[in-house]
Amino acid sequence: MDQHHTFTVTPVNNEANLRDQSSGGRSPTLRVPVSTFDIDGEPTDTLTQNSITSLLSSKFRDVAKRWKQYGVDSPRFRKRIHSKWESMNYEEMDSQLTRKNREGKQSKKKLALEMLSSWVIYFFIGVGTAFLAAGVQISVELIAHQKFELIKDYFDKCDKEGCLYKPVLIWMGINAGITLVGAALVTYVQPMAAGSGIPLIKSYLNGVRVPGLLSLRAFISKCVGVVLSILGGLACGKEGPMAHSGGIMAAGLGKGRIPWFGKDINIYGLFRNDHNIRDLVAAGAASGVSAAFGAPIGGTLFSVEEAASFWNTELVWKVFFSAMIACFSTNVLLSAFEGHPTQLSNPGLVRFNVFPNLTFDLIEVPVFIFIATIGGLTGSLFVVMNYKLTVFRQKYLHRKKWIKVLEAGLVSAVSAVAAFLLMFSVNDCTEKHPYSHHAITTKLGCSGESHNSMSTMFLTTPEGCLKSLLHDPLEMYSVWSLVLFVVVFFLLGVWTYGLSVSSGVFIPSLAIGAAWGRLIGLGVVQLFPDQAKDVGKYALIGAASQLGGILRTTISLTVIIVECTGDITFGLCIMISLMISKWVGDFFTTGLYDMNVEVSGIPLLSWEPPPLCEDVHVSDFMSQPVMTLLSVERVGHIYDCLSGESFNGFPVIEQDPNYDLMYRGKLKGIILRHQLLVLLKKKMFCPEGQLPAASITLKDFENPYPVPQRLKIQDIELSDADKQCVMDLTPYMNLTPYTASISFSMPRVFRLFRGLGLRHLVVVNDNTEPIGMVTRKDLAKYRAEIKKGMLHMEQLTVENR
Amino acid sequence: MDQHHTFTVTPVNNEANLRDQSSGGRSPTLRVPVSTFDIDGEPTDTLTQNSITSLLSSKFRDVAKRWKQYGVDSPRFRKRIHSKWESMNYEEMDSQLTRKNREGKQSKKKLALEMLSSWVIYFFIGVGTAFLAAGVQISVELIAHQKFELIKDYFDKCDKEGCLYKPVLIWMGINAGITLVGAALVTYVQPMAAGSGIPLIKSYLNGVRVPGLLSLRAFISKCVGVVLSILGGLACGKEGPMAHSGGIMAAGLGKGRIPWFGKDINIYGLFRNDHNIRDLVAAGAASGVSAAFGAPIGGTLFSVEEAASFWNTELVWKVFFSAMIACFSTNVLLSAFEGHPTQLSNPGLVRFNVFPNLTFDLIEVPVFIFIATIGGLTGSLFVVMNYKLTVFRQKYLHRKKWIKVLEAGLVSAVSAVAAFLLMFSVNDCTEKHPYSHHAITTKLGCSGESHNSMSTMFLTTPEGCLKSLLHDPLEMYSVWSLVLFVVVFFLLGVWTYGLSVSSGVFIPSLAIGAAWGRLIGLGVVQLFPDQAKDVGKYALIGAASQLGGILRTTISLTVIIVECTGDITFGLCIMISLMISKWVGDFFTTGLYDMNVEVSGIPLLSWEPPPLCEDVHVSDFMSQPVMTLLSVERVGHIYDCLSGESFNGFPVIEQDPNYDLMYRGKLKGIILRHQLLVLLKKKMFCPEGQLPAASITLKDFENPYPVPQRLKIQDIELSDADKQCVMDLTPYMNLTPYTASISFSMPRVFRLFRGLGLRHLVVVNDNTEPIGMVTRKDLAKYRAEIKKGMLHMEQLTVENR
Repeated sequence: MDQHHTFTVTPVNNEANLRDQSSGGRSPTLRVPVSTFDIDGEPTDTLTQNSITSLLSSKFRDVAKRWKQYGVDSPRFRKRIHSKWESMNYEEMDSQLTRKNREGKQSKKKLALEMLSSWVIYFFIGVGTAFLAAGVQISVELIAHQKFELIKDYFDKCDKEGCLYKPVLIWMGINAGITLVGAALVTYVQPMAAGSGIPLIKSYLNGVRVPGLLSLRAFISKCVGVVLSILGGLACGKEGPMAHSGGIMAAGLGKGRIPWFGKDINIYGLFRNDHNIRDLVAAGAASGVSAAFGAPIGGTLFSVEEAASFWNTELVWKVFFSAMIACFSTNVLLSAFEGHPTQLSNPGLVRFNVFPNLTFDLIEVPVFIFIATIGGLTGSLFVVMNYKLTVFRQKYLHRKKWIKVLEAGLVSAVSAVAAFLLMFSVNDCTEKHPYSHHAITTKLGCSGESHNSMSTMFLTTPEGCLKSLLHDPLEMYSVWSLVLFVVVFFLLGVWTYGLSVSSGVFIPSLAIGAAWGRLIGLGVVQLFPDQAKDVGKYALIGAASQLGGILRTTISLTVIIVECTGDITFGLCIMISLMISKWVGDFFTTGLYDMNVEVSGIPLLSWEPPPLCEDVHVSDFMSQPVMTLLSVERVGHIYDCLSGESFNGFPVIEQDPNYDLMYRGKLKGIILRHQLLVLLKKKMFCPEGQLPAASITLKDFENPYPVPQRLKIQDIELSDADKQCVMDLTPYMNLTPYTASISFSMPRVFRLFRGLGLRHLVVVNDNTEPIGMVTRKDLAKYRAEIKKGMLHMEQLTVENR
Repeated sequence: MDQHHTFTVTPVNNEANLRDQSSGGRSPTLRVPVSTFDIDGEPTDTLTQNSITSLLSSKFRDVAKRWKQYGVDSPRFRKRIHSKWESMNYEEMDSQLTRKNREGKQSKKKLALEMLSSWVIYFFIGVGTAFLAAGVQISVELIAHQKFELIKDYFDKCDKEGCLYKPVLIWMGINAGITLVGAALVTYVQPMAAGSGIPLIKSYLNGVRVPGLLSLRAFISKCVGVVLSILGGLACGKEGPMAHSGGIMAAGLGKGRIPWFGKDINIYGLFRNDHNIRDLVAAGAASGVSAAFGAPIGGTLFSVEEAASFWNTELVWKVFFSAMIACFSTNVLLSAFEGHPTQLSNPGLVRFNVFPNLTFDLIEVPVFIFIATIGGLTGSLFVVMNYKLTVFRQKYLHRKKWIKVLEAGLVSAVSAVAAFLLMFSVNDCTEKHPYSHHAITTKLGCSGESHNSMSTMFLTTPEGCLKSLLHDPLEMYSVWSLVLFVVVFFLLGVWTYGLSVSSGVFIPSLAIGAAWGRLIGLGVVQLFPDQAKDVGKYALIGAASQLGGILRTTISLTVIIVECTGDITFGLCIMISLMISKWVGDFFTTGLYDMNVEVSGIPLLSWEPPPLCEDVHVSDFMSQPVMTLLSVERVGHIYDCLSGESFNGFPVIEQDPNYDLMYRGKLKGIILRHQLLVLLKKKMFCPEGQLPAASITLKDFENPYPVPQRLKIQDIELSDADKQCVMDLTPYMNLTPYTASISFSMPRVFRLFRGLGLRHLVVVNDNTEPIGMVTRKDLAKYRAEIKKGMLHMEQLTVENR
């Protein structure tokens, strides 16, 4: 075990090294020696990018042939340029430095202190998210009420005076004005704040970070943006943005520093590594969901199921703790807002409001199954339409920022016009009182005591609309009004999701489903007037099915919906319909979030290795010219490696004296880019044969977290003398990298990678010489898709622009 | 990637081999060559068992010293002989044979068929468990009602006539008689059916099987046994046994064969490997919990959280599907039993019955926290007492089977006497009607319209007792009667858990907690007569806290309880109290199930590596004389290896010609004991230089599943000529075993092992020569315990008797 610590090697003065020294500064194309061996470890010609691609595609031809043989419908080879992303490193370091650090400082007291402080952080994540959620909720409610009161007054006035163009214009104006601000905020301040945020948070927990995802700017754009989007009358909800902003808040609390005019005020630095921050983000996202839906269990499951490879009881309890605190505090705040601060079981806290008599009979189950099937069909239609739209947007619309902003404004104005047209043209009048006391109704074309029934649906936020559809009396809406509402809201929903605004897709999906569920409920009541007297439960099942069809809800979303209804007995029906709608939907397309991730080009790793890839071996997909460093390496070479290549991990080898022209030798460890950057920055090098003057601690590595944003190779200035120095990497490198042998199959490597949350896996030959590296992009290469019941396989080229 | 396939090696005629040949038949002490190298790969003397133990304890001294330094309270070195167990192999095979098999036969049709048949199996698991649960429930209710009616009649009669000894004797007689049968069934038919079953199922999902756990005998003993235990008046419930029998049923369905007078009728063989059977058992256990509690989500989480290392959406959906079907079918069956077959939302289906007005106010939260603290304290007291009792039982009582049976009978008789004494001595009379219409009450010492209030608690099953405590009117029970009930039931509960009967600990824990929760509720009502009018919610929180304190409920149990109450808003309080009771309890002891597992000596791997073990390296804990085989190996040697050693995996090496006196060479693969057994059984060998006549398919390896029970080395007859033959292991061995390098630290190996569900991990040196093996028992060696707030570390010697 000690053979790693004692040896020292001075770099061999080989040809390559000499060439390297002569080249001096930054080299745009890398001219440093790379070890390229074929499988048996024999040196081959240096591979060029082209030859690799052709190698890959010829390999793919073999694979594709085999796939065809198995009956796969259309194996394809796609070259796809992926957007900017960054792998996370969830593995813990095991270097001499960390080992020493543990020995020197660890004690029971310190352990206890660390444990306690982490619980405190988790507590504050919960409380913070609760304040956020309550703030968003209350401000939306208050301002939206004002807005719709104003519009209603105009409608009531102009209905008599014949100036209906006025309220429509005002409505359009308010909508477009607010939305433009919201869209501009997102587009110009932090584009990562667009959309739901859930796909990105899921990717983060999966191991890929999109730059800017957890920034303060994203936080502001997300929170303020979602308030503006809802007020702007878009068909969107606040749950996804809540999860995202919860995650950002948690990451911020974890980093423990306050940005202050370009400087940082460091408060604490206990959690500054990918591993800890990931745990905190999981708790933040869970708290966000929990606060938005009053669903602590659902929220916990939401986070944990994406992050199951690191599920452990300790973490689950912490996440659950945060989620519970978030739910509890939100309930206290909302109760206080409604004027009864201590009544924590008032039914208004159940997010879908309480259904008084949610009973069901065995004979109703077929109806629920029918509803669920429709949910699956329409859900996949939603996904397909949104997919086409997204691709169209990417290709034509979203090249210019101002077009993005304008489009959002347009959608909100159209929403207002559509709402008006529906209210005006259907013109159903009813005397029934809507379920909600706060509901705003207008007379618009109705006389006497009656009011325009559709106005209860439109003169409110999407959440209010959903509640109306779930709870309003049976006779409130006519068949026609529901049909038109479904069509219009469906199209608006498709159009809205993907705009450059902060918006969630939960609530609109639920509202669409509730509307056609209600429609089916009306039919059932017609057919069996003796038995069925309530359409609420059909609306609820419709809402769940629609959500299931669009998002392909996993178990967490099931729990969230059950928690939102506050009734467990009926939960069984919800579960059945969610499951069926998922099955039906999965037959045609992937879910909306998965589609999102795919389109945005994030190399998410699925749960299981892609099917039919058992015959693809490491040698087929590893990144092959592997760039290695010696354990005592020349600074100039390190600098060139870092500036010429974007690799994030470099295997460290012990030079084999038999091959002094090549960088070749047994694997001794692996060192990460950010470690090298810190080492260069701190000038931890010295002329050959001397000992470095500077010293470095673990804190120095952790403090600049996250390094890729805060420390760049371009910012490091090195003199020519510096470049002649050598750096001893032995104390800092990870001494025990996980390795795979060359004959490992794809699924085997996949499980290793996914199970341990790795960022790099070194492929070694029989002599433990590194001959390749496997990273996330190599594993994301093969992808299986089911479209219209057919299995498609494709091979992608994943790049990181 | 192909170098593994082509080479062939004929065994070197070295000294060791010759010795081997001369020894012929079975050798009691193994005299075959083993490769023992020190860390740098230099050959050392053969290590004896003694020298290994002394090596370990000297290593431990180092480790212990370091622990002391960190402030650990009492590092100990314990030699502990562990009970019989067997590691599971959840890793999938990757041999030439499996690769070929895939190429030859896989097609989309076959894939689809396999998928469909697996869903069908999961469906039947749900339905089967539902029938089982409903059967147990209904038979218990019907017979228990008869029993208590009989006793009540005698009480009513004898109360006047002064012959009270009669009903007491009858009660004792019935109890003891039934319990003796139940205990005998468990003790003599399958002792593994004793107790709750949940710890064993958890161990199974964790990767350790206790022999007999999933046998038909265990199934019968468990199901019939639990009915008899409850009818025998023991303080026990049916939920644990339900989970266990659900698991057994699932495993049975998976194996797809019907035992028929010593012969097997094979029906299908798709799922015959550890991996698939484990997934099915997870579904079975989930369905069992779901059916027993009406808690599909809780049940799913229960299974999945113990098995999170293989959580994937596909499996979760399948498990959830089974659990849902189980819950749904149980509800249909129970509704039919109660006479309204299609009303699936009748409140009786909520297992704790519906609480009409479960509201809470912020000011009540401190009371709940107080209750939760008491729950944690009393819970750890329960665990400590039960632990002492279990150790006492193991040492003195349970050496003879008949003593086990007698003890169970004694407990049930004492339960009857205790119940009578309480009813007789407290003698509270009340005119209040109990909540349940089926409740049986006796007059015993009361006159007029009133009846003995305690009789509602005792003349019913523990489940009925729990419901009474939760729902009966406020004035029903006096303070004294509750205090006495708590004390007596607590002691009976401690005494009952661990008897050799099939019994669960959920319901009695809940009942104890409900009783003292009610007591505290009475106090609150006294103090704040204006505000608090209902004691039910305090009883509920008490019940949850007691359960949390005893079992240290994880998130799954939280969900189960919330699902049992049918109310989500109040769920927040339940979660808070569960969390606090867990914290308090964890400060003093581990949970009851963990204690169980520890005492039974099963090497369960916890979620996280043991703390403070970062400095323990592979070389410190691997099993060192590693027994290797050549890729073409002499049959006699294989036979000796199998009969002389209990190792389950053998690294296969390519003999290094430089060391022809030693078995030494590069690792080529790993072959499992059961594969070798099948190969020997099928006589897949031939004289040197020839090709084997027999052929073998993947089915041959899968059919005798589970091999350790069905194929033993003693049953295989080999002639001396056979033993001179050679066997080519290349096509069957796993070509890509996971390996660890010698400098890996304990936590790193632990994560690798746990994350991938491994059974063996080969430790290799720099030249990829196997120098050690890590198995489960090596990892379970270091254990951390928290007792009374102090961290204890110990090193165990884990053996497999």
